[in-house]
Amino acid sequence: MNHSVLTGLIGSGIGPSLSPALHEREADRHGLRLLYRRLDLDVLGRRPEEVEVLLRAARDAGFDGLNITHPCKQLVIRHLDELDPTAAELGAVNTVVLRDGRAVGHNTDVTGFAHSFARGLHDAATDHVVQLGAGGAGAAVARAMLTLGADRLTVLDADSGRAAALAEALEQRFGPGRAASAELPELPGVLAEADGLVHATPVGMAAHPGLPLAAELLLPQLWVAEVVYRPLETELLRTARALGCRTIDGGGMAVFQAADAFRLFTGLEPDTEAMLADFAELVGASAPAVAD
Amino acid sequence: MNHSVLTGLIGSGIGPSLSPALHEREADRHGLRLLYRRLDLDVLGRRPEEVEVLLRAARDAGFDGLNITHPCKQLVIRHLDELDPTAAELGAVNTVVLRDGRAVGHNTDVTGFAHSFARGLHDAATDHVVQLGAGGAGAAVARAMLTLGADRLTVLDADSGRAAALAEALEQRFGPGRAASAELPELPGVLAEADGLVHATPVGMAAHPGLPLAAELLLPQLWVAEVVYRPLETELLRTARALGCRTIDGGGMAVFQAADAFRLFTGLEPDTEAMLADFAELVGASAPAVAD
Repeated sequence: MNHSVLTGLIGSGIGPSLSPALHEREADRHGLRLLYRRLDLDVLGRRPEEVEVLLRAARDAGFDGLNITHPCKQLVIRHLDELDPTAAELGAVNTVVLRDGRAVGHNTDVTGFAHSFARGLHDAATDHVVQLGAGGAGAAVARAMLTLGADRLTVLDADSGRAAALAEALEQRFGPGRAASAELPELPGVLAEADGLVHATPVGMAAHPGLPLAAELLLPQLWVAEVVYRPLETELLRTARALGCRTIDGGGMAVFQAADAFRLFTGLEPDTEAMLADFAELVGASAPAVAD
Repeated sequence: MNHSVLTGLIGSGIGPSLSPALHEREADRHGLRLLYRRLDLDVLGRRPEEVEVLLRAARDAGFDGLNITHPCKQLVIRHLDELDPTAAELGAVNTVVLRDGRAVGHNTDVTGFAHSFARGLHDAATDHVVQLGAGGAGAAVARAMLTLGADRLTVLDADSGRAAALAEALEQRFGPGRAASAELPELPGVLAEADGLVHATPVGMAAHPGLPLAAELLLPQLWVAEVVYRPLETELLRTARALGCRTIDGGGMAVFQAADAFRLFTGLEPDTEAMLADFAELVGASAPAVAD
């Protein structure tokens, strides 16, 4: 019997997603027949709460796995049979493996960011890391930073309650003193004694252009890790590089989360360097910048 | 956006089906990324009446088309938006095209048999054709024979009422005198003045071995068209060839119905000779015999 793998992505407005091309090209390198389809809520006329219908359809139709993105990463959980520890801790699922009649949720955003950071900034100091943004992406990358060994993470968010809640959850998970929150007006002082900045808000995306902080707060000795990858070179990265900061763009996280999902779906070891090259070609840019 | 085609087969016990390999290999020749998946009622624990659930799942999950086989060819009809004339006339659908939110039923068994006959026995006399079997396959191939221009078709079936009903439907469709039914004891006389025999019962399949008629009724001047293709060389074909009859096996119909479905699913013109070669390789036999 011929082996093939059927996967897809559930979310809203996912037409521009590069995941289909990333997964299918990687499968081609393995000689594996794989399809990665978009199940777009907008196209299908479904509300986010109807993610169950699409999940059910994918299960009945024999899908081997799904990625889940905005606005369904939390909504999908109640319809799964099992969560891996990372997804359970985050309360967010971006990858569902469908096997033997069971649906198991994973979160490869955490491992994706960790791999990207380890690739581009493995030798950077992480005694004190400042993170802007405590939403879904922020919750994932904060856990990645602390898992990678950052001593202390200070989280800030325009919604200070959200920052405080994330810091508290991180302290419970990683131990007292590992995480704290701060108010945005405290940012200058916090950054002045930090090693690096993780940016996890939507600012810098095409729909939200601009800088997420005042340019003068960036200092040459800071490294900057960007989560936004559309565009690949955000105004934050451009400004930071001009100052001489070491940086990683959001492309690495996008690629490594896809690579980790590919491994879960297929059981095959992805060629991440080839996937990074594909990504660079697909976004029509040079290779995702590593630390420079 | 990368183009791909997602198709499948709904039916019972379809594990051994060669359709996935036939469709996927043909797609590969076109450089088209295509998956053809089995949606097996038995594997999924669904009753035939639940074909609607699987059809709905395939629609929601973005399938481009489905083949439908036993026991769902009739049951699926009420859940479709439209039927092509052949499928409507037959009351049986083996191919569903899903496009622009609509599900349209087709029947490529009729065209499949017609192509196979035209390829292997195009110059055979068809003044009077005898057909054994008036079930689903029989209804399809009888229409193919009359559409190809056979003057007169006599249908026999162990269930004589079924044979009479098919003959009556054929006369209404193709005109008075084009079709008749006969009782099985009349077979010797009917065959004695016939040009050829179409065999459309399950006899000769692995589960129903043997000959569908007494060997002495086969005469060298008859051509024999077989619908069974598992095994490709049935006892009927072996006996007929030993007598010197021209024959076509059931592989041609199996391949051409797949080719016609492929064209409907993809809009691409299939390479039927290459598909015939694939089929021969897949059944581990020599190329499906044409008239010999």
